[in-house]
Amino acid sequence: MGALKNHAIRLNSRPAGLPVTGDFELVESEIPTPGTGQVLVRNLYMSVDPYMRGRMADRKSYTPPFQLGEVLQGGAVGRVAASNGNSDFAAGDYVLSMNGWREWFVSGSEDLTKIDVSIAPPRAYLGALGMTGLTAYAGLISIAGLNKDDRVFVSAAAGAVGSIACQIARNMGCEIVVGSAGTEEKCAWLTRELKIRDAINYRETKNLSAAIADVMPGGIDVYFDNVGGSQLEAALDNMRQGGRIAVCGMIEQYNAVEPPRAPRNLANVLTRRLTMRGFIVLDHLDMRERFLSDMRDWIAEGKITWRETVVDGIEHAPEALIGLFKGDNIGKMLVKLADDEG
Amino acid sequence: MGALKNHAIRLNSRPAGLPVTGDFELVESEIPTPGTGQVLVRNLYMSVDPYMRGRMADRKSYTPPFQLGEVLQGGAVGRVAASNGNSDFAAGDYVLSMNGWREWFVSGSEDLTKIDVSIAPPRAYLGALGMTGLTAYAGLISIAGLNKDDRVFVSAAAGAVGSIACQIARNMGCEIVVGSAGTEEKCAWLTRELKIRDAINYRETKNLSAAIADVMPGGIDVYFDNVGGSQLEAALDNMRQGGRIAVCGMIEQYNAVEPPRAPRNLANVLTRRLTMRGFIVLDHLDMRERFLSDMRDWIAEGKITWRETVVDGIEHAPEALIGLFKGDNIGKMLVKLADDEG
Repeated sequence: MGALKNHAIRLNSRPAGLPVTGDFELVESEIPTPGTGQVLVRNLYMSVDPYMRGRMADRKSYTPPFQLGEVLQGGAVGRVAASNGNSDFAAGDYVLSMNGWREWFVSGSEDLTKIDVSIAPPRAYLGALGMTGLTAYAGLISIAGLNKDDRVFVSAAAGAVGSIACQIARNMGCEIVVGSAGTEEKCAWLTRELKIRDAINYRETKNLSAAIADVMPGGIDVYFDNVGGSQLEAALDNMRQGGRIAVCGMIEQYNAVEPPRAPRNLANVLTRRLTMRGFIVLDHLDMRERFLSDMRDWIAEGKITWRETVVDGIEHAPEALIGLFKGDNIGKMLVKLADDEG
Repeated sequence: MGALKNHAIRLNSRPAGLPVTGDFELVESEIPTPGTGQVLVRNLYMSVDPYMRGRMADRKSYTPPFQLGEVLQGGAVGRVAASNGNSDFAAGDYVLSMNGWREWFVSGSEDLTKIDVSIAPPRAYLGALGMTGLTAYAGLISIAGLNKDDRVFVSAAAGAVGSIACQIARNMGCEIVVGSAGTEEKCAWLTRELKIRDAINYRETKNLSAAIADVMPGGIDVYFDNVGGSQLEAALDNMRQGGRIAVCGMIEQYNAVEPPRAPRNLANVLTRRLTMRGFIVLDHLDMRERFLSDMRDWIAEGKITWRETVVDGIEHAPEALIGLFKGDNIGKMLVKLADDEG
């Protein structure tokens, strides 16, 4: 075995429809050396998220597109391996960055955030305690204006964002929280572990709209939409007057080659005075302190839990990303890049 | 010629698609006699509005459906012909009511609102100074949160609501106000008389989205949607980040027999963080005083104008209503029921 090398994943070609592994390329290089004032970080875990699919297309979206032939980017947690005179970070510190899709990197302080591993393990900062959890929090509180009397429906409820959204709604006092998911195992997790009122296996349901009406006869006040398309349409059928839809994701159509199927009952926005509002977590970073404080309390009280689906080795990161669109994950999908030897 | 009779229009059958005159029936009866404490009102003008199409279907909407064989309802202005001891209204008073689609009616005070004809003629209270104007006002101010820097697009801009919305936006300081309409005459009225920045004849435009981009290269901050469907889709293409869509009407699909065409770019709600909010003027009646006060000022300053398309005689009211869906009207469509002999 030779000396330790650095590995990273580059975007090889822009996917048409669902990405394939050939759209990605594993590249090997030397482990970089930190310049003066820089640190060397070894990533422990990296995040794969549905929004990354959008950045693989060469079109305007809320983040600029990934460039062909360049190493991809995304959330990662790592550990400082060496500091070349950096005054903010010392060897052994755990850090969060957007320098995922690579095993090692050098950086100044500006790209790094120190994380508190006394609350939860580092990888939780890519999921429940990270952007994923904050997305659920901001969507419910700031976008949907959740209050305890709301009846809440969450799509992709066993996903990274959805599973936290379900529990935040429950913790805020909402008695009727219902989620949709694509397997019986996911549904069982939602009702038994996350303790929400009901879960609908949308793959086993012929008529999702009727299935929602069945378990939520009073209708939906707040729909946390991670899916769009057919699930949005089913939710629109069941929205109560004055209902709010927080549009967080539209995973159903991220890989669409044809223009996607659109909800044909959009007129309900008018007749039921609905508010439908899209949001991006990056606009809500000011809520991060409040979010972490609530999460700390909920963790201490045993009122929040999460699961991770961990794929081992950077060479499998493309498969992990592709798996998101097939529903391979329960909870947050992560790629493990190194053992934490701290 | 016999004695004066009362005429009214009943709903004969529920329209399938665009209503036809056979869906309506003209009925004759005696002029009613006011009971003790009641007044007899002779209607001068009645309103026909697109929302009435929704009430002709036997389905849940924001107002209960019209009943077959019953006289229709809708806004009307009239004059008290006789009072049988009513202490609030005297013969000669001008009143607004929801007792349209009939020439005469008797009522207690509870269904009547006195109107101030010193500001504008009675029929204006069915349009610019009535629910129509308030709809435009509430939609822009309360739903879209209009401010003077917004770039505003209004569909059906030469219609009753749209033409007032254009001028309110202009009066509130918005420099870029653009409307869509279906004839050159309407477009000329919008730019020359209502003095908005530009007007697009959507019937002459092959690609409405490109046409909007052409005259609003900076995009749309606020879209006041009266149309839905293809115009909503074109607007969604051009919305700026953080844009707001006030969903006031979806006239394009009120007569749809098939589920309507839906915008296939709804994902822009997410990627551009849009807020799309449906509303009903009845939820905003608390803005009426402020609205009338602003309108009084704008009228005095010559800063608001309106047009009416008047159809003569109750027997033509069904055609007037049907004409709304063909774009027969410029400004408010009214039916004249009697001369004002006051």
